[in-house]
Amino acid sequence: MDGIKKNYVVGVDIGGTNTVFGIVDRDGNIIDIDSIKTKKHDNFDDYLKDLHSGITALLEKNNLVGEIQGIGIGAPSANYHTGRIENAANLPWGNIVPIVEKTSKIFGGLPVAVTNDANAAALGEMKYGVAKGLKDFIMITLGTGVGSGIVVNGEVVYGRDGFAGELGHAVVIRPNGRTCGCGRKGCLETYCSASGVVRTAREFLREKSESSLLRNIPEDQITSKDVYDAAKAGDKLANEIFEFTGELLGEALADFVTFSSPEAFVLFGGLAKSGDLLLDPLKKSFEKSLLFVYRQKPEILLSTLKENDAAVLGASALGWDA
Amino acid sequence: MDGIKKNYVVGVDIGGTNTVFGIVDRDGNIIDIDSIKTKKHDNFDDYLKDLHSGITALLEKNNLVGEIQGIGIGAPSANYHTGRIENAANLPWGNIVPIVEKTSKIFGGLPVAVTNDANAAALGEMKYGVAKGLKDFIMITLGTGVGSGIVVNGEVVYGRDGFAGELGHAVVIRPNGRTCGCGRKGCLETYCSASGVVRTAREFLREKSESSLLRNIPEDQITSKDVYDAAKAGDKLANEIFEFTGELLGEALADFVTFSSPEAFVLFGGLAKSGDLLLDPLKKSFEKSLLFVYRQKPEILLSTLKENDAAVLGASALGWDA
Repeated sequence: MDGIKKNYVVGVDIGGTNTVFGIVDRDGNIIDIDSIKTKKHDNFDDYLKDLHSGITALLEKNNLVGEIQGIGIGAPSANYHTGRIENAANLPWGNIVPIVEKTSKIFGGLPVAVTNDANAAALGEMKYGVAKGLKDFIMITLGTGVGSGIVVNGEVVYGRDGFAGELGHAVVIRPNGRTCGCGRKGCLETYCSASGVVRTAREFLREKSESSLLRNIPEDQITSKDVYDAAKAGDKLANEIFEFTGELLGEALADFVTFSSPEAFVLFGGLAKSGDLLLDPLKKSFEKSLLFVYRQKPEILLSTLKENDAAVLGASALGWDA
Repeated sequence: MDGIKKNYVVGVDIGGTNTVFGIVDRDGNIIDIDSIKTKKHDNFDDYLKDLHSGITALLEKNNLVGEIQGIGIGAPSANYHTGRIENAANLPWGNIVPIVEKTSKIFGGLPVAVTNDANAAALGEMKYGVAKGLKDFIMITLGTGVGSGIVVNGEVVYGRDGFAGELGHAVVIRPNGRTCGCGRKGCLETYCSASGVVRTAREFLREKSESSLLRNIPEDQITSKDVYDAAKAGDKLANEIFEFTGELLGEALADFVTFSSPEAFVLFGGLAKSGDLLLDPLKKSFEKSLLFVYRQKPEILLSTLKENDAAVLGASALGWDA
């Protein structure tokens, strides 16, 4: 491009259902935002035409055509190094999608970069959120699964293949670990995700005899929200579920510290919104499990980005240096 | 200094007994090497005078006074960020030793840097050894304990406090983990170090009834070398000890991959010299334990540096950019 820095970027968050895109300024304000359906077309080029039209319309509406520094894309199974989406289980466009090359081309050579959702979230926190000014931190996204984005010396760790930072599949220290969707056993996300909380609830309801509000719900219909609501209402068993979850997450985070000795962990996602229900046991177990040299050093922070904005903001953060 | 790059560095390896120092050229040749006793003086300044005399004599002998780019120091509990040795358990000079500042001063302002032994080993492998050309790898030193040095994007990971990379204290996935010298339970080094192998030998000898050459040695005198010799002689129990150790190390390394997705692990130290006795079960368990996205990617390499030279070479590697 012409080398002059522009004042806006476009962030694109590709989810299984919707693709959300927004124009973002240097302070992390979303100027305008819109979306298209991700799976309307089985062919990526057709999808990309829709995306191009949508973004162009948004730019025209806001008089910002030509004012964009770059486009950052967050997508599942995205590889920053290759600029491709590789073997994404829930996207319809084939095994390998060279999304950076094609997106840049359709936008007339605009710089484009892609990374996975959790790395984008880490970038978003570093650029606009609670990790501003931090150079060493670990983003943990607690959703249906557990994702992670690791920042070392101010840079996201991508590793040799672009797929570093899969801490949701680090194995926790429990005998007879739970079977994970990845085919292995005992992965962190089988315990400390929304679905992990549900599995814990089912286990506890079977193993323990105490009464619980959760016994009023058919076992196969319990959600993590039900567990949260019951815990908030003072239900003892539901509180034990959060204690178990927090304790396990604290142990895992303490182990991650032996790797990069971060300044902080930043937690984001549904479970992170459980607040002290999760944080109290988490912090206690974290501090207890830390190697002495790290004690009282790393902070456990909650994301300050609005949940609905975070994905687009995170993706957009990648656009500044695309 | 004057900005002109010199062709030699000095590497200093501070061990509990001896401090070894050598002059090293750009290709990793040790031009000359000498040593002093580490604990001759309780006062650091007196020790440093000895070290200064020793290095100066070595430089004069080789006509290399004024030809030194910098001094790299490897020492236990050394903090790269602060340039200090901090709370080293087995050094006599007090809790905080500002070794970089004082060494640079006594050498007339020469650039000096310090890091811990395992980080120095990683730098040595990257500069002169089997990790030459790698940008993402993890050094694992298998000695009395287990140390690690992590390289991401060609840079050693130091973390917020300079103490990143304590993977010997990552907790392995075993119920009722062994008590570690750090006060915690189940640390990798309680299993996969020379002393871990001895602990396994004692456990196996008690728990199993099969005959073994190791039963000829008083239990409290068994060394990892005894276990190695017995295994090499075909002893079944000794072989099972190595299988157990390798399997556990393979699981742990596979877990570390979820963090930085390295190109390789580089193994160094006494246990690494066990060769296939350790490597066969290690590689099998490693590949089996890897998350699918990483399979058949990271290599398990053995250090190619001579054991006696490695520490000084590693320390010296830090001198080039001190």
